[in-house]
Amino acid sequence: MSGHPTVQLPVGFRAAGVTAGLKASGTPDLALVVNDGPDRHAAAVFTTNRVEAAPVTWSRQVVADGRVDAVVLNSGGANACTGAQGFLDTHRTAEHVAEVLGVSAADVVVCSTGLIGELLPMDRVLTGVDAAATALSAEGHEAAAVAIKTTDTVHKVSTYGGAGWSVSGMAKGAGMLAPALATMLVVVTTDAVVEQTDLDAALRAATSVSFDRIDSDACMSTNDTVVVLASGASGVSVERDELTESLIAVCSDLARQLIADAEGAAHDVAIEVVGAASTDDALEVARSVARNNLFKCAIFGNDPNWGRVLAAVGTTKAAFDPTTLDVTMNGVQVCRAGGVGEDRSLVDLAPREVHVLVDLHAGHEAATIWTNDLTHDYVHENSAYST
Amino acid sequence: MSGHPTVQLPVGFRAAGVTAGLKASGTPDLALVVNDGPDRHAAAVFTTNRVEAAPVTWSRQVVADGRVDAVVLNSGGANACTGAQGFLDTHRTAEHVAEVLGVSAADVVVCSTGLIGELLPMDRVLTGVDAAATALSAEGHEAAAVAIKTTDTVHKVSTYGGAGWSVSGMAKGAGMLAPALATMLVVVTTDAVVEQTDLDAALRAATSVSFDRIDSDACMSTNDTVVVLASGASGVSVERDELTESLIAVCSDLARQLIADAEGAAHDVAIEVVGAASTDDALEVARSVARNNLFKCAIFGNDPNWGRVLAAVGTTKAAFDPTTLDVTMNGVQVCRAGGVGEDRSLVDLAPREVHVLVDLHAGHEAATIWTNDLTHDYVHENSAYST
Repeated sequence: MSGHPTVQLPVGFRAAGVTAGLKASGTPDLALVVNDGPDRHAAAVFTTNRVEAAPVTWSRQVVADGRVDAVVLNSGGANACTGAQGFLDTHRTAEHVAEVLGVSAADVVVCSTGLIGELLPMDRVLTGVDAAATALSAEGHEAAAVAIKTTDTVHKVSTYGGAGWSVSGMAKGAGMLAPALATMLVVVTTDAVVEQTDLDAALRAATSVSFDRIDSDACMSTNDTVVVLASGASGVSVERDELTESLIAVCSDLARQLIADAEGAAHDVAIEVVGAASTDDALEVARSVARNNLFKCAIFGNDPNWGRVLAAVGTTKAAFDPTTLDVTMNGVQVCRAGGVGEDRSLVDLAPREVHVLVDLHAGHEAATIWTNDLTHDYVHENSAYST
Repeated sequence: MSGHPTVQLPVGFRAAGVTAGLKASGTPDLALVVNDGPDRHAAAVFTTNRVEAAPVTWSRQVVADGRVDAVVLNSGGANACTGAQGFLDTHRTAEHVAEVLGVSAADVVVCSTGLIGELLPMDRVLTGVDAAATALSAEGHEAAAVAIKTTDTVHKVSTYGGAGWSVSGMAKGAGMLAPALATMLVVVTTDAVVEQTDLDAALRAATSVSFDRIDSDACMSTNDTVVVLASGASGVSVERDELTESLIAVCSDLARQLIADAEGAAHDVAIEVVGAASTDDALEVARSVARNNLFKCAIFGNDPNWGRVLAAVGTTKAAFDPTTLDVTMNGVQVCRAGGVGEDRSLVDLAPREVHVLVDLHAGHEAATIWTNDLTHDYVHENSAYST
C-alpha cells in the first residue's frame, strides 16, 4: 500500500519533523501531528509493560475521553524510569504544545523513544516544539515519520485509500520489538467521518492481528504507543467494518516494514502454525519458536535445524501429540509425524524471507507470527547502545 | 568442591569413556557407568519438554521402580525426533548393555546428546558399548565425563566428601541450557547407604535449587537427564537431610561449571532478586531478566544499561510497585526507586562474573538465577551447528 502515489493523504491534518538537538547524530528528532478537525476523535493502545514510561502514563489519561488534538513525539530519549521529574517533563511538553497551538494540554498525546533512564534536555524539547509548530504543513507527514526514527534505517509510512477518504500511518521501531505491542510509536490518521467507539474498536481489532503478531526479539518496551486520529474532514461516513479493514491494512503493512528493518536482521521469518485447537494455541506455539535463540541463530546461518523448532514447540501447553507434528521449511517437509522427513539439505534458506510451517494436527485454527533471525549485527548493535 | 584430591570417589562403581566413532571429531563419545552394589537404588529427573527424546521415554520407565544397574550415555546424536526407529535403537542399546554386563535391560538407563532429528549409527554404538564394558574401572569416572561432552570445552566433575562416604557427579551441557532442567546429562553416584525414597527426595530438592536455577539461553532440551545411583558400598548410613545437603553441593557446583562453560559466553551473570513476596515471584523476575536478549547483549558490551533490566521486570506478574524498584549492578545502585540512581559509568563490567541485584520491596523472599551474556561467539557457534 505504501508508495501508491495516487492515494491522497487524509485531509484535516498538519504535521512536521524538526531537529531539536536531542540526538547526538544531529538528525531530526521531534515531530508534531495536529488534527484540525472538524472531528477530534481518537483511540490508542499502549504497552502492557508494568514499567511504563512517563509519556505513556500521561497519554493514557489524555486518550481516555476519546479526544486528541495533537501528538508530539520525540526520539533521542525514552523518558522512562525517570521518576517524578520525568512525568513533570512530559506534562510540561504537553502544556507547551497546547499553548503554541491554542488547545488544551489534556488533549495532547506525548510519545518518547530512545534510551531508558535519562532525563530529557527540556530546553531543547520546548524549543523544538516551537520549531515544529512553525513548520506544520499538510505535507509534513514524511518529515514527521523521519523525526521519530531511532535505530530505524528507513522511515515507515503506509496509506490506504477509500472512496473519497483515506487512512495513513507512520511508525518507528527496530529493537525491543515484541508484543504486546511490538516496541514502536505509531500515529495513524484518517479523514473519515466515524464514531469514536468504532475508531476504538477498529484500532484494537487491527493491532491484535498486526503489531501484536510481530516478535523480533521478545523484548517488550516501556514506551509502545499506537494512536489513531480521525478528523472527519473528508465528509465521508465510514462504517466500523470498512474502517477496521482499512486499519488492518495500514497496521499490517507497517508491522511488516518494522520486521524488514529490525536491528541487525538478515532474515524475515514467518512462523505459521496450522491445525491448532485454538488461535491462542497457534499463537503460543508460533511465539515459542519465534523466541528460540537457537532456532534464530540457525536461520541466520542458513541452517534448517528443524529439531530446534520441535524443541521449542515442546515447551508449550498447546494441544498436540508429539508423534504427529509436521514441520515444513521453505516448502520442504523436513519433519513428518514427529520424526525425520525430507532431507534437510533440500531447504534453501538463502532468501531474506523464510517460511516455517508447523502443523499441530489438533484442530482447524491457525496464526502467524513474524520474527527475525539472531545475528552478529544484532549483538553488535545492542552491546553498546547506551555507551 | 571439584579438585579436592583428598576426597575419595564413591566405591562400588566402575566407569569408562571410549571413542565409538559417533562424532566427526573423533573424540570420545560413549560412556558407561555401572553400579556394582550391594544396593542399586536410583532416582532421576528428566526434561519437561513435551517433545522428548527416545532415551528419555525409555529411561523414565527404567527408573520408575527405583533400581538402576547401569547408565550408558552417548554424545554425537540426541536420538530425538527419530520416531519408532529411534525408540527401537534406544531399546537395543539397553539390551546390549544388559547382555554384556549380565543385568536386566529394564535396569539400564540410556542418555543421548547431540543433533536432533538424526538416527544413531547403531553398529558403532553397539561396538562402542563392548569397548566401554572392557574398559570399565573404578578410576573411569573422568574418562566417562570426557566422553559425554558435546560443545563443552572442558569436562565437569564434582565430588563431596562425607565421613566415610562420598558423592560424585559428572555433567555435560553448554547450549540449550535452560530450566527445567538446564539442558544437560548428569550422572551422580554415591556409596552412602540410603533409602531409595530419600534418594529420590534429595535429588528433587537438589535439582530444584541448582540445575533449575541456571538459564543460559532460555532453550529447553529434549534430552535432559539427571540420574543418581547409590551403591551402599561404604557401609555408612546417611539420613535424608545430610544426603540432600551433599547432593545440593555437588549439583550446585556442576551447575556453576555449566554456566562457566556455556557456548560463546563472555560473562557469567547472577540475577539476584530480593524483597520478593514469594520465591516464585523472585524466580519469575530473575528469569525474565536472564532471558532478555537486549540485557544480555548489553552485558556482553560491558554496558550497564539498567533500563533493560527494568523493562524485563515490567513484563512479569510479580508483586511490585514500579516506583520503588532498586537495581544494583556490581555494587553500584544505578536505579533507585524506579528512577535514576548512581551514575551508570561507575559500573565496572569487565570481570567475567557479573552481579545484578533487583530489590522488589514487596516481601522477604529471594532467589538467584545464573545466566550468560549474548555474544558474537554464541551466534557463531549456533548458526552452523547441523551443517
